[in-house]
Amino acid sequence: MSIDPEKLDRLAEVAVRTGLNLQPGQDLIITAPMAALELVRRIAVHAYKAGAGIVTPLFSDDPITLARYENAPDESFDRAQNWLFEGMAKAFKGGAARMAITGDDPMLLAEQDPAKVARVSKANAIAAKPAMAPIVGFEVNWNIVAFPGPAWASRVFPDLPVEEAQGKLMDAIYAASRLAGDDPVANWAAHTAVLKERVNWLNDMQFDSLHYTGPGTDLMLGLAEGHIWKGGASPALNGVTCQPNIPTEEVFTCPHAYRVDGTVAATKPLAHQGSLIENIAVRFEAGRIVEATASKGEKVLQELLKTDDGASRIGEVALVPHSSPISQSGLLFYNTLFDENAACHIALGQCYADTIQGGSELSPEELQQKGGNQSIIHVDWMMGSDAVDIDGITKTGERVAVMRAGEWA
Amino acid sequence: MSIDPEKLDRLAEVAVRTGLNLQPGQDLIITAPMAALELVRRIAVHAYKAGAGIVTPLFSDDPITLARYENAPDESFDRAQNWLFEGMAKAFKGGAARMAITGDDPMLLAEQDPAKVARVSKANAIAAKPAMAPIVGFEVNWNIVAFPGPAWASRVFPDLPVEEAQGKLMDAIYAASRLAGDDPVANWAAHTAVLKERVNWLNDMQFDSLHYTGPGTDLMLGLAEGHIWKGGASPALNGVTCQPNIPTEEVFTCPHAYRVDGTVAATKPLAHQGSLIENIAVRFEAGRIVEATASKGEKVLQELLKTDDGASRIGEVALVPHSSPISQSGLLFYNTLFDENAACHIALGQCYADTIQGGSELSPEELQQKGGNQSIIHVDWMMGSDAVDIDGITKTGERVAVMRAGEWA
Ligand SMILES: [Zn+2]
Ligand SMILES: [Zn+2]
Ligand SMILES: [Zn+2]
Ligand SMILES: [Zn+2]
Repeated sequence: MSIDPEKLDRLAEVAVRTGLNLQPGQDLIITAPMAALELVRRIAVHAYKAGAGIVTPLFSDDPITLARYENAPDESFDRAQNWLFEGMAKAFKGGAARMAITGDDPMLLAEQDPAKVARVSKANAIAAKPAMAPIVGFEVNWNIVAFPGPAWASRVFPDLPVEEAQGKLMDAIYAASRLAGDDPVANWAAHTAVLKERVNWLNDMQFDSLHYTGPGTDLMLGLAEGHIWKGGASPALNGVTCQPNIPTEEVFTCPHAYRVDGTVAATKPLAHQGSLIENIAVRFEAGRIVEATASKGEKVLQELLKTDDGASRIGEVALVPHSSPISQSGLLFYNTLFDENAACHIALGQCYADTIQGGSELSPEELQQKGGNQSIIHVDWMMGSDAVDIDGITKTGERVAVMRAGEWA
Repeated sequence: MSIDPEKLDRLAEVAVRTGLNLQPGQDLIITAPMAALELVRRIAVHAYKAGAGIVTPLFSDDPITLARYENAPDESFDRAQNWLFEGMAKAFKGGAARMAITGDDPMLLAEQDPAKVARVSKANAIAAKPAMAPIVGFEVNWNIVAFPGPAWASRVFPDLPVEEAQGKLMDAIYAASRLAGDDPVANWAAHTAVLKERVNWLNDMQFDSLHYTGPGTDLMLGLAEGHIWKGGASPALNGVTCQPNIPTEEVFTCPHAYRVDGTVAATKPLAHQGSLIENIAVRFEAGRIVEATASKGEKVLQELLKTDDGASRIGEVALVPHSSPISQSGLLFYNTLFDENAACHIALGQCYADTIQGGSELSPEELQQKGGNQSIIHVDWMMGSDAVDIDGITKTGERVAVMRAGEWA
């Protein structure tokens, strides 16, 4: 078995029609690993069918990336393609949409000098800022989808031959991305409607806090002042309603960085920069993690929490029912796009400004006063399961059932 | 038989070391057809070994190109990637070198609407101007090499299975590019020395005209005022001596657009935009082609000559000995990079400003006064063979043997 071309084509079509909602005459820039060439070709077809002006694919190639680490002079590792990122920024300002394809080898750089990897990553992050600003600021419609690249597929299905692993991972992506059935565009409309209903209810309730109880978990999690729940499709500033993540199952908002107390036991391993951290258990006091253990990778976890001041506080809280297709697959994807959509999660580190009312206009200090956490990291970890209950605590102290045994109450 | 990896690797190394002469710390932008991925990977390795800062490959993909012709709305065909070309221009101004890889399907667009092809080509030409200016103006070191892509290989060897055709074409490229032997870099140094010797002698002679005689050919070809012969490696304005074309066999200069008289019979078919023009015979009067026939493709030839005023005059004259490796291969490559280096040739259309003294500073009108032809086309066609003699006529009317039976006299 290898990748089913019909499933791949449907993924491409939904990414263009529902994910991007590409508009007639709109240009499109696609960044993709070389392994995803076949998906990019299909996206180009659907983009032009949707009326694209011009589609520009930009490929990263693993052997060329490795050629640099293995042969380049030391100075190379502080350089980046500024001219290319500035050009992309110009294209987005001119109205182009953005598609990113994930699915490259998560362990590609595992053998390389971590200092060089860090330097390249920093140089890229700085150079990419002009190109990322219109995306992060949601100025244009954008979307990210996954292709089952061989190295990733072998990581998820280590016992299968690579082609079979890719076929299996394609099936998993297909199911997770709600592509099955007669009309995947209708699937997404229905799914978005469900997410919006939850979002609206939660925004109406304006809970003061959420109370989580389950095995190893007894957590009182305060929500930020003026927090806004988000989820599913939303309009970019250019007026185009798009679905940035495919798949997506979460509704999420901003926790209060200084009002989180109690214990949490993670319900899935956390894949972080090539390491796997298992059985995480932490205790919060006044928003700060004051105790943290793990049965495996505890050192990586401790280092992560020490990254900066905000790394031991949380910046996102997200609700995902246990019945979500990704959770039902029982797979660990080693890819945040999937794993964070498998269970209720919280994220260490940076909050999203747009999950606080008027947050996009607030300074980091003003955000922090409302409870919005600040950090250079944002790491999601799963703490929901079918054994976890969640209550909402209203501003007047009333308890309302939010989730029971992992499902919406 | 398929492509010999050792030959491919040597081509990559020579392209970087001799073609580009890439400098330590210099960035590199590579444009390539997707089919040439394996060559690009090897070029990246050699570029980083030579001290490259960062290597950026930009791939064009035939199926994505066709997806546009087959699916895009009409407006698409006037659009181009301005942001990308402007970015490249910025990179070149910042010191990046340029590598172009040829070898894509010469017939890719044969089935597409010629009006759309022309619109895309025009939109691209206009958008690419900022990126081409530093190349045409020789501000940075650049190089073009060929990869034996499957469609091109099948065109050159139509009777062979595709992999075998690619292997054969790789061998032909290898031989033509003077890569055989222990030290291809030394081959190129020696070859450049020979070309320079011819260039220096021709520049010292400052012939008034060249007189060609052979079967069907009796041509008195005046040279432009202050013409300069060029050939082989030369220094770009950034001070780096590079070899823009691999292969290259020609020494060339600027003919006088108004002082060409007599008859010429082409010695090889001319591959032009997917058509083959055979047995071209023309007659010049005062620089202008006043009669033109061909045994096949005569209509295409007539259309070509009518493109604009300068299309029926010549802008380049080039001398290539019959013993050149490309000529000896006996192959028609359907690719100017190779075919123009197989025999003495002239080019219809635009002259190169830098083949006239001070030409880069002259206006088109000033160039024309010295004999430099102006046109939007530049089409090389072969009129040398082992049956053609060439004399140089000095300013005082003396005759000097330049070539005899296709070889340097
Ligand atoms: Zn999340
Ligand atoms: Zn998150
Ligand atoms: Zn030439
Ligand atoms: Zn030419």
